[in-house]
Amino acid sequence: VTSPQGFLAGAATAGLRELKQGAPDIALLYSEQPCAAAAVFTQNRVKAAPVLLSQRHLADGRSQAVVANAGCANACTGEQGLRDAREMAELTARRLGVAVEDVVVASTGVTGCTLPMDSIRNPLLTIEPSRDGGESFARAIMTTDKVPKLAAAAFSAGSRRYVVGGCAKGSGMIHPNMATMLAFLTTDAPIEPAFLRQVLDEAVVVSFNMVTVDGDTSPNDMALVMANGVAGGEAIGAGHEAAPLFRQALRSTCVHLAKGLARDAEGATKLIEVRVEGATSEADARRAARAVAGSMLVKAAVYGCDPNWGRILVAAGYSGADLREETTSLYLQDACLLARGRLQPVDEASLRSALADPDVSIRLDLGLGQGRATAWGCDLTEDYVRVNSKYTT
Amino acid sequence: VTSPQGFLAGAATAGLRELKQGAPDIALLYSEQPCAAAAVFTQNRVKAAPVLLSQRHLADGRSQAVVANAGCANACTGEQGLRDAREMAELTARRLGVAVEDVVVASTGVTGCTLPMDSIRNPLLTIEPSRDGGESFARAIMTTDKVPKLAAAAFSAGSRRYVVGGCAKGSGMIHPNMATMLAFLTTDAPIEPAFLRQVLDEAVVVSFNMVTVDGDTSPNDMALVMANGVAGGEAIGAGHEAAPLFRQALRSTCVHLAKGLARDAEGATKLIEVRVEGATSEADARRAARAVAGSMLVKAAVYGCDPNWGRILVAAGYSGADLREETTSLYLQDACLLARGRLQPVDEASLRSALADPDVSIRLDLGLGQGRATAWGCDLTEDYVRVNSKYTT
Repeated sequence: VTSPQGFLAGAATAGLRELKQGAPDIALLYSEQPCAAAAVFTQNRVKAAPVLLSQRHLADGRSQAVVANAGCANACTGEQGLRDAREMAELTARRLGVAVEDVVVASTGVTGCTLPMDSIRNPLLTIEPSRDGGESFARAIMTTDKVPKLAAAAFSAGSRRYVVGGCAKGSGMIHPNMATMLAFLTTDAPIEPAFLRQVLDEAVVVSFNMVTVDGDTSPNDMALVMANGVAGGEAIGAGHEAAPLFRQALRSTCVHLAKGLARDAEGATKLIEVRVEGATSEADARRAARAVAGSMLVKAAVYGCDPNWGRILVAAGYSGADLREETTSLYLQDACLLARGRLQPVDEASLRSALADPDVSIRLDLGLGQGRATAWGCDLTEDYVRVNSKYTT
Repeated sequence: VTSPQGFLAGAATAGLRELKQGAPDIALLYSEQPCAAAAVFTQNRVKAAPVLLSQRHLADGRSQAVVANAGCANACTGEQGLRDAREMAELTARRLGVAVEDVVVASTGVTGCTLPMDSIRNPLLTIEPSRDGGESFARAIMTTDKVPKLAAAAFSAGSRRYVVGGCAKGSGMIHPNMATMLAFLTTDAPIEPAFLRQVLDEAVVVSFNMVTVDGDTSPNDMALVMANGVAGGEAIGAGHEAAPLFRQALRSTCVHLAKGLARDAEGATKLIEVRVEGATSEADARRAARAVAGSMLVKAAVYGCDPNWGRILVAAGYSGADLREETTSLYLQDACLLARGRLQPVDEASLRSALADPDVSIRLDLGLGQGRATAWGCDLTEDYVRVNSKYTT
């Protein structure tokens, strides 16, 4: 997230997390120049205080800094939550010398409890953002994540080289709807604000919105992109020759982070990639792919290396997508189990061993049209249950 | 299901189940008189062969017999599946001396494999239905169910006493949509066909459609009611003085069975009842109640006796129901945690011990209108994962 020029980050320890007490849990991301900025937020009716505040601060399409914390989501916290989110922005503005309205606030962690502001103030004011602080930032926003999720891509326009960077967190309560848990994207390219917004929306639809861990949409979801133009050159809008290159760079960064969320999901041992093609529309393909990736029964079968493929077809069947058994083909780890509605002979033992791979591929050809989409999910394990029943996370 | 007069049932062993090999797994339900009959079926686009056949057989609103089997769902089985379902109906018609079109066929078990008809023919033709065969029928259709689910209610009109009976099976792939796994309701009252259909639809909406175990809608869902009129008296239609009594009897039987499904769900240790009131509409109340009952995070928290109530509000928030934090009140095991958006002090230790009860009650007052609904679900345990990952069920 600090790979593009002119972005700095850093973190400190406020002791907000029940687990990993000594690790940094509050972090700043700062751009030396004001940025064009766009974000998508949770569609949950319950919106966390930092989401409500950041929506206001981003209304002008500009931003210069982010303050984020783990351990407490500051969600379901009413008026006190809004006051605390505002103080987070004020402290950050004071520390970095930027306008309060140019600070985005993001929180993640336990819902239903307020931020311990007394523990936050001093650590926040001591953070020293640096050019190599990206990984510290990514680690500080982790909750049940086991690994930090970082990605970057580069593209060129004329003689100039631009970089897109990003990081994300999240491993439970993941079923983003117009946004993900927390994702921060940065670029040093001079992107026009309207185009930035459009490209972010497009990228989120095929990346974060296609990930599901447990079907639970969090009230804190946020994906933010900031473009500071520090690498120079003329403004890049929709008509610019570099527009498709930026679009591709942001998209691949988002997809990389989205797959990282699924792979590192709570309790997960496998990444499941569900490709749906031949759907009546792209919207139908997305519906079917998300339903299969989200089915508890599919997830449990993948965990157990059980080639119980009927569950895949059943999930597509209740997804709302147009589907006819007699035109549907189904592939599991590239083995064809159903060809236009006809059962295919399959070597169950070799399919079972293929399912032991940490990457499981499901491909469903609905045989009806040109719509296609890919979704990512993970297996359902006893550890998911343990993580979410034994601790307040 | 044989409590009403004139209904007989029986079962035999065809060896269809991988587990419980010696137990009966194929069963007949038979009415001595032709019945007015109505059913609701799965809304999954993938419909099992017995569902497609039974929809045709029930088009005339009449039925006299049911043949049901466990171990194999005869779903995702194409043309062969339809031929096998038809043969099941023909064998039953021959055994009982009824018309083929008056036989309803129901199958439950593993999807994606065809019925072993060679193992089914002889056992099916040996079944001797009897007046006390209701429990054998209920046991024969169990899959991962641990207990048979039976219920009955009675009502009177004038000097006559009528009985409504029923049984149901299902403990995984439970998220009924216009129907449940398999439920069979019977009555000896002379119910007019149009009224029977209407009362069934009403009862299903508040019972089977409000149960969720894992969000997976099965392709075999079916709830059937048969009224044989054997107890005599004049036909009961919507305008009859006994109409509300029959409505209440069928509804309470369905609700009893629906709660039984949730309590006996795969891996479950607790029944969760979610009451939503104060919603803008009844549809909104149903949405919110089902979302809370179906949330993996709520289910896992209940399992671990973790009063992590933010997850409840979050699930209602993404349900699609109208919701405002500042008007919402939340009760867990009757303890008020949130009163019109304000956090309430609560003794966490006593709440934790209250959550150890096998019956967990969640009440959400949205404070917006008059809509109310109740949904039932169960906790999410390591055993659910084990059952659904280690065996093909």
